[in-house]
Amino acid sequence: MVQRRRKLGRGVAVIGGGMSRFGTFPEKLGRDLMVEAYTEALQTVGKGMDPKDIEALYIGNFTSDSFEDQGHLGHIIADTLGLAPRPATRVEGACASSGVAFREGIMAIASGMYDIVLVGGLEKMSLLGTEHVQDALGLAADVPMERDDAGYTFPGLYATMASAYMARYGSTREHLMHVTVKNHQNGSLNPKAQFNVTLRETMEQRKKRNAQRGEPVPNWRDEFDFLMDPGPNPLVAWPLYLFDCSPVSDGASCIILASEEIARNFTDDVVTVAATAQASAGPFSTWGGDITSIPSARVAARQAYEMAGVTPKDINLAEVHDCFTAAEIIAIEDLGFFEPGKGAFAAAEGQTTRDSDRPVNISGGLKAKGHPVGATGTAQVLEVWNQLRGKAGPRQLTGRDLRLGLTHNVGGTGGTTVIHILERK
Amino acid sequence: MVQRRRKLGRGVAVIGGGMSRFGTFPEKLGRDLMVEAYTEALQTVGKGMDPKDIEALYIGNFTSDSFEDQGHLGHIIADTLGLAPRPATRVEGACASSGVAFREGIMAIASGMYDIVLVGGLEKMSLLGTEHVQDALGLAADVPMERDDAGYTFPGLYATMASAYMARYGSTREHLMHVTVKNHQNGSLNPKAQFNVTLRETMEQRKKRNAQRGEPVPNWRDEFDFLMDPGPNPLVAWPLYLFDCSPVSDGASCIILASEEIARNFTDDVVTVAATAQASAGPFSTWGGDITSIPSARVAARQAYEMAGVTPKDINLAEVHDCFTAAEIIAIEDLGFFEPGKGAFAAAEGQTTRDSDRPVNISGGLKAKGHPVGATGTAQVLEVWNQLRGKAGPRQLTGRDLRLGLTHNVGGTGGTTVIHILERK
Repeated sequence: MVQRRRKLGRGVAVIGGGMSRFGTFPEKLGRDLMVEAYTEALQTVGKGMDPKDIEALYIGNFTSDSFEDQGHLGHIIADTLGLAPRPATRVEGACASSGVAFREGIMAIASGMYDIVLVGGLEKMSLLGTEHVQDALGLAADVPMERDDAGYTFPGLYATMASAYMARYGSTREHLMHVTVKNHQNGSLNPKAQFNVTLRETMEQRKKRNAQRGEPVPNWRDEFDFLMDPGPNPLVAWPLYLFDCSPVSDGASCIILASEEIARNFTDDVVTVAATAQASAGPFSTWGGDITSIPSARVAARQAYEMAGVTPKDINLAEVHDCFTAAEIIAIEDLGFFEPGKGAFAAAEGQTTRDSDRPVNISGGLKAKGHPVGATGTAQVLEVWNQLRGKAGPRQLTGRDLRLGLTHNVGGTGGTTVIHILERK
Repeated sequence: MVQRRRKLGRGVAVIGGGMSRFGTFPEKLGRDLMVEAYTEALQTVGKGMDPKDIEALYIGNFTSDSFEDQGHLGHIIADTLGLAPRPATRVEGACASSGVAFREGIMAIASGMYDIVLVGGLEKMSLLGTEHVQDALGLAADVPMERDDAGYTFPGLYATMASAYMARYGSTREHLMHVTVKNHQNGSLNPKAQFNVTLRETMEQRKKRNAQRGEPVPNWRDEFDFLMDPGPNPLVAWPLYLFDCSPVSDGASCIILASEEIARNFTDDVVTVAATAQASAGPFSTWGGDITSIPSARVAARQAYEMAGVTPKDINLAEVHDCFTAAEIIAIEDLGFFEPGKGAFAAAEGQTTRDSDRPVNISGGLKAKGHPVGATGTAQVLEVWNQLRGKAGPRQLTGRDLRLGLTHNVGGTGGTTVIHILERK
């Protein structure tokens, strides 16, 4: 079959969006967090909107079945938000669940069925202890092959990719630390972030705490010295240490989509979907021998650039799936921002900081903003939408023209990758 | 907002479909069953097709997380069927999961993104004991409200609706038995059905078994007498007894969809999607006092008829969601086939048998065909597609013009309802 360039039957725009704070909230159900996200989203619609105008919902969630003892989440959210009997569909792509929900909302509008759709995602992870969270996240792998036969944990899978990368390209643990430092720096400017302090502040807090407790006060020289200390930063799965891993989080996010034809009824700041792309992959053994790059991400990236008619150089900012620091390195290569093997070195040289030409994870990323897995995809979209409109508050990028932003959302180790490019009109 | 008539941007047709046998298969994973369904589906494409032409997958599944210790099912199925890196999205609407998957596939094609899409569903339920199956199915309810506060089990919810119906309309347990007898009769003609014997045959088998074992042989006069015996038909939740309930099943089903423009490249028997409709609802307490009818089903039915431009009288056959016998009674009223309160009596009068004007659940329904919950929606579509094309084998309806068939697929107690109307061109 001839590979044709993908095209939507009609244009789709983002007209609103919101998110709960990400963190751990023992007193709240997942649905409560979605109420917070939705309430904010309605307030962001420039010219206002009547919630009755929302015609359908797509809700991304990985496994509330495991995390919260609740399935069939679509109708729960429709009912909780007062939107029943509107159709509400839960979509699942592991940690890419709400990236996929965003995509389904786009296609539902492009299909002609709906003009206005609410898409979002949520995950309430903190009810379970960390050990059980690992069990639940492990369901994103090919369980009989990767867990039962090969004995992998979820961090173990990414650690394997990270060590393969380091072996092949000669990078070190210190390269990964630069991702940690950067994303915590970015998160410090994000009031919704789970960790909205810099690593230096975290380090100073630990010193102060130790002093108050009368315990020895470590003499860490800087953040890198702090990260080398196995006390605050113990090994998880070599070469990934605690501060290489995104946290266990609760949170929700959502986006309101409209057909491009009617978007100006709701806002003067029109941001449209320039590309939506998704791809899948099996376990490592099907990857053709190279696990330093995620095949589904490369495929989806190529399709996204083709659909938008742009190149990696045209992207002004990107939110990528840094569930682990090493995943961010691989992401910026799979997206074509850097050549294979150059990403780790580029990150260490500051080529992805908020002062660089193409900042990565200005929101703090999964690492610092938090990673309530089903909420991550639409939270990425929200950051890009806010930046493109100049509405990102204290972390707004300034002194540059922002036209194109990209989101890169990965389920499992690339079982699902979904990539979107948004464009300010 | 003005309620506009829903319309797809372009037409969508069914060009293939298949299913595994439904039953309990201890030696098979859910993915193995999908291989069987997919293999059959490829063979049913009239003029043949290259699997490479499939551009995307939508996989309906309720909770493989709970049933099979496997999440992120989309990529598993894409990889297993050799279809990676094509995008594969799992959609979940409890027992309506693959009805929803079918709908997402339709919209994906109508959106212009794809020309050919594989949609399907699967569930592997039998690994868990019946008690744990109940726990897993219970996740389809609003757990904090319906299970934790109100103390409902899943059969208990439908039993409450059934007893409310009987109290309001004066029907009895015997009316429900007619649904059981009919659906087993239909299932006896379906070689893929979990129970492909009539109730009378089941009754005779039990007699023979008792005789062989030297146990007393009951003198059941007929199927109704058999169903009144608490030995073979014990109480589950009054007024629902064992033979009022669909079984615990393993199975998979799938459908191949194409844009209407290209459908004739694949088949001369073109069957198109005349309507797709979906609606949601919260728990009983939000239903306005009447629990003898499912609000989301009424809304979805009205939208489906509007979209197709037809009335209930125009429907030639229907596959409805008889997870319990009482659910079939409520379904045929919600669909407008019978007035409220008349369905139970109509069923007892034989107005829904395969010899009637508008047969219901010719396949055997969930009751006799089996109900691997995520597989049910596309299995319903498969039956209607086969009947409309005259390809339903020993249970083909004859001596009548079949033009319009309807599927009615319900998640939970109507948290999600999805209705489709297919039309033979």
